[in-house]
Order: sequence, then C-alpha cells, then structure tokens
Amino acid sequence: MASGTNSVSLASVSGESAQRLIASAARKASEIGKPMCIAVVDHAGILKAFLRMDGAPLLSVGISQDKAYTAASFGLATDGWYDFIKDDAPLHTGIVHTPRLVVFGGGFPLFEDGQLIGGIGVSGGHYTDDMEVAKAGMTDNGFAVD
Amino acid sequence: MASGTNSVSLASVSGESAQRLIASAARKASEIGKPMCIAVVDHAGILKAFLRMDGAPLLSVGISQDKAYTAASFGLATDGWYDFIKDDAPLHTGIVHTPRLVVFGGGFPLFEDGQLIGGIGVSGGHYTDDMEVAKAGMTDNGFAVD
Amino acid sequence: MASGTNSVSLASVSGESAQRLIASAARKASEIGKPMCIAVVDHAGILKAFLRMDGAPLLSVGISQDKAYTAASFGLATDGWYDFIKDDAPLHTGIVHTPRLVVFGGGFPLFEDGQLIGGIGVSGGHYTDDMEVAKAGMTDNGFAVD
Amino acid sequence: MASGTNSVSLASVSGESAQRLIASAARKASEIGKPMCIAVVDHAGILKAFLRMDGAPLLSVGISQDKAYTAASFGLATDGWYDFIKDDAPLHTGIVHTPRLVVFGGGFPLFEDGQLIGGIGVSGGHYTDDMEVAKAGMTDNGFAVD
Repeated sequence: MASGTNSVSLASVSGESAQRLIASAARKASEIGKPMCIAVVDHAGILKAFLRMDGAPLLSVGISQDKAYTAASFGLATDGWYDFIKDDAPLHTGIVHTPRLVVFGGGFPLFEDGQLIGGIGVSGGHYTDDMEVAKAGMTDNGFAVD
Repeated sequence: MASGTNSVSLASVSGESAQRLIASAARKASEIGKPMCIAVVDHAGILKAFLRMDGAPLLSVGISQDKAYTAASFGLATDGWYDFIKDDAPLHTGIVHTPRLVVFGGGFPLFEDGQLIGGIGVSGGHYTDDMEVAKAGMTDNGFAVD
Repeated sequence: MASGTNSVSLASVSGESAQRLIASAARKASEIGKPMCIAVVDHAGILKAFLRMDGAPLLSVGISQDKAYTAASFGLATDGWYDFIKDDAPLHTGIVHTPRLVVFGGGFPLFEDGQLIGGIGVSGGHYTDDMEVAKAGMTDNGFAVD
Repeated sequence: MASGTNSVSLASVSGESAQRLIASAARKASEIGKPMCIAVVDHAGILKAFLRMDGAPLLSVGISQDKAYTAASFGLATDGWYDFIKDDAPLHTGIVHTPRLVVFGGGFPLFEDGQLIGGIGVSGGHYTDDMEVAKAGMTDNGFAVD
C-alpha cells in the first residue's frame, strides 16, 4: 500500500460497479429461474448495493450480506472456507460460530489489480446455484473468478 | 476521487498514525489529570486503535468509540451535531436515537489533503476536557482542527 | 493506584459484601411494602449479586442492573446525573441515549477507603423509594452515602 | 486475595503494559509479514488497548477481542479449550455456542505473580501464526507462556 504521512491508500468497489454486478447476477438468476438476494459490500465490508428479487427467500436477505462480508473480510471465497477448516478440528468446531462468517458457497472477494476492493454474496438456491449466479455477475464485469 | 473501472480510491488512517494520535492524546489527558478512553477508527468507522487509560470510566469505553464513529461517519465533529439539530425539531427529537450517534463534544474527523481518513473519539471527563485532549492529539500529529 | 511492572492494583466489592447489601436493602423494601430488584456490580460493572423480590416489576430487572452499572462507571450516584446534565443542552439532549446510562435515582457507587469498588442499583418503586432502599442497604453495611 | 471489610483486592493489566504488549506483538507480525489485529483486555474482560494493523482482515477485529476475552475469562489459553472439550460430547456440541467464546489458538491469559490480570488476543493469520505473535508479545514483556 502507498501511504501518506497519516494514511494508507485503498481501492474500493464503486457504486456503479456494484450495480452492474447486481444487474448481471440477477439476469443469470432469472435465466435459471431462481429468485435470489444479491449483495455487494465494499472493501470494509459495508453494504454498497443490494437486490432482493421478487420471491427470493427471507433468510437470504441476511445470508447474502454475510457471504459478501465474509468474502471481503479475508479475501477468500466462502466455499474455500470449508476446505480450509474441514481437517483442522479446532477451526471446524469453533470458527463456524463467528458472527457473520459463512463457510459455504456463494460469496466471492472482488479484486482489481491485485487489491481487495469488496465482496459479492448471493443466496436463494442451493449454494451451487448461488455460486453460479455470483460468478456470472463477476465474469460479465471483468472480475476474475479464481 | 480517482477511480479504476470498478473502484474508487480512498485514503485511510494508518495503524502507525492511529497509535501516534493515541499516545499524544493520552499525554495530554495525563497532564490535566483525567484518565480517558481514546479511540481511533478508520474512514469506514472500523476500530483501528484504542486505549483505556488506568482509571478511565467504564462507560467511556463505548462512548469514545461511538464518538470516533460518528465523526468519521459524516466528517463532522460531534460537538457540531448539537448546533446542527438544536433548532430543527424533528432532528432534535428523532436523530439522537440513532445507534452510535453522539451529539456532544469529543469526536473529530481526521482529514488528510481534504480526504476523510478516519475519526478520533475521546471520553472520560466533561466533553470540553475530552475535546481538549482529542485536539492535542490531532495538533501534535499534523491534523487540522477546524 | 499502586502498580506492578505490568499491572495496577484495584479493590472490588466482595461476594459476601454484595449479599449483605442485598439483604439489608431487601429488608428495607419489605418494611415499606414495595418489592424491588436489587443489583450489585463490581468495580468493572459486572454483576456480582442480584435479587428480584417476589412481585417486583419486570422492567426493574434490567433497570436495577443498569443503575448499578452507571454508578460504578463514573463513581457518581444516578440521581446526580440529572443535575449534571440539566443545564448542559448537548448532554441533556444526547447522553441520555447512551446504552445502560440511567439519569434518575436509585444507583449509588460503592467506595471503600476512597476507592470505587462497585455499585448498587435498586428499582421497583418511584426512584425516591428506590434511593431510600439503596441507602438503607449501604448505611447498614458501613458505606458512606454522599 | 487480600480483602477489606467489603472488598477483595485485584491486580489488572496497566494501560502502559497493554501498549507494550501490542507494540511487541505487532513487531513480530510485521516480521512474519502477516498484518493482524491485537487486543488486550483487563482482568474483567474490558478492552484496554487495541490495534488493527494495516491490511489485517475485517473479521479479525472482533475475533481478536473475543480471544482476549475468552483467555481472561477462565485464565486458560484459547488453544487449550479445544483439547478440553474435544472428548466431552455435551461441551463439544454445546459450549461452542457461547457468545464470545473462542476455542482455537491466539488468546492467552496474562498472569503476574500468579494473579490473572488480563488477556491478549491476536487474529489475522492461521491460529498457529496468531499464537506465535501473541507469545512474542508476552515473552518480550516478561509474561510467562505456559
């Protein structure tokens, strides 16, 4: 990070980019016929844009935001968390209780030029559906999906 | 703000700057003989550094963090809030119930080159004492106090 | 405060003292025919002993604990808070929203040899009743009531 | 514990010691190239000092504080918790749901002359990294690591 006397410089997902991500993801969700909640948070985990499609499940309102938050928190896709903890007993037993931490798929970090600028979280179907929808949103907008 | 395709660029108070602010403020609090809690949050309101001096009041642990959060939130010193709402009945009645909003002195935004990079909050004495301590921390470290 | 290399020394209300305070206060509440909730917190504001007398109001369960917490927080009786803020508009408007802060009577700090060792909070009647009950508990056990 | 008529005496980590612990731990985290959050709580679990190093993960802000709280709570390192519960089915299933309890490494109790005076919690890498950083902070400042 570059820095001033009292600061470090950061990049953070823009409002326009967050809206494009949601539009693309929602288009994919419509295609597969599963209404979803789609959340984009900035690099600091704060909600940047959100859409609950008509008919998306209630619990998904919160889960989608937590997936985006988790992804932005460590720069790790939420589906990567389960692999990370499954053979590490203390984490497997304990870290799943961390407030807002989601360890199943549907949350992805957003990187630009190697900097973590935010996260996207999708919830509404099985997590494999959620992942497909989030990835479609990212790919459409030039974000790499690891 | 400069921007990439998907991002805006930001500056955020560094950990070293936050620690210097706390050290300077604590020195001033010691000078006036009032132990205080001193909190620095980043541009996104997230705790960056904190010190509860020995003997500082319990309630100040939370109040100092909320003052810093409030200041970083709108880029407005907390003592400015009361003047802002006092003759506006709906705000005077209502906005004071906002979680974490503090409308008395002791919280200041931190600006560098015109960018809001964080906030400092001090609590432990009367708010006039708290303001004096926060200002000493800021002045020592090159931050303008409006 | 005396101090070790890494510590300061403190005194904190004992469990036995907390129980004596509650027994004395409850006796007084019975005498005046008003069942009350009585809470004692330690110097750090953590619940040390508690009694809800039969028939004491529901809301008093929380209010009594918050009164004790407020008193231990600044070493100030809760009835002193209103006098402190009533002519200070920003505090009068704002600080009353601080979580757990109570600005009416019934909470008293507990001092021993000049050290703040905890707080007692009583709720169940008008705050003048609550104050009478708390004071009876303190006086019976050698605590000064300012 | 020594005691007065109404009190027990305690020792609690000082603000200066808390700052030294954080400085030492942050130096070690820098050395190993992993930015971390470092929290010190007093003997009562109340936040005493905190630093979020530049780039430390978001979720670590809370986890570090909870690790310090857990360690100060029972005087037990957080990595000891998993061993303690792993073969005790009711605890393994249930106690992990306790708010703020962390059962993986990175939180250590702080003892001075046999008295529990606080806790340190570190989060940012794998818990083995976190433990290394916390231990470096403790060792530098004369705290025994069991």
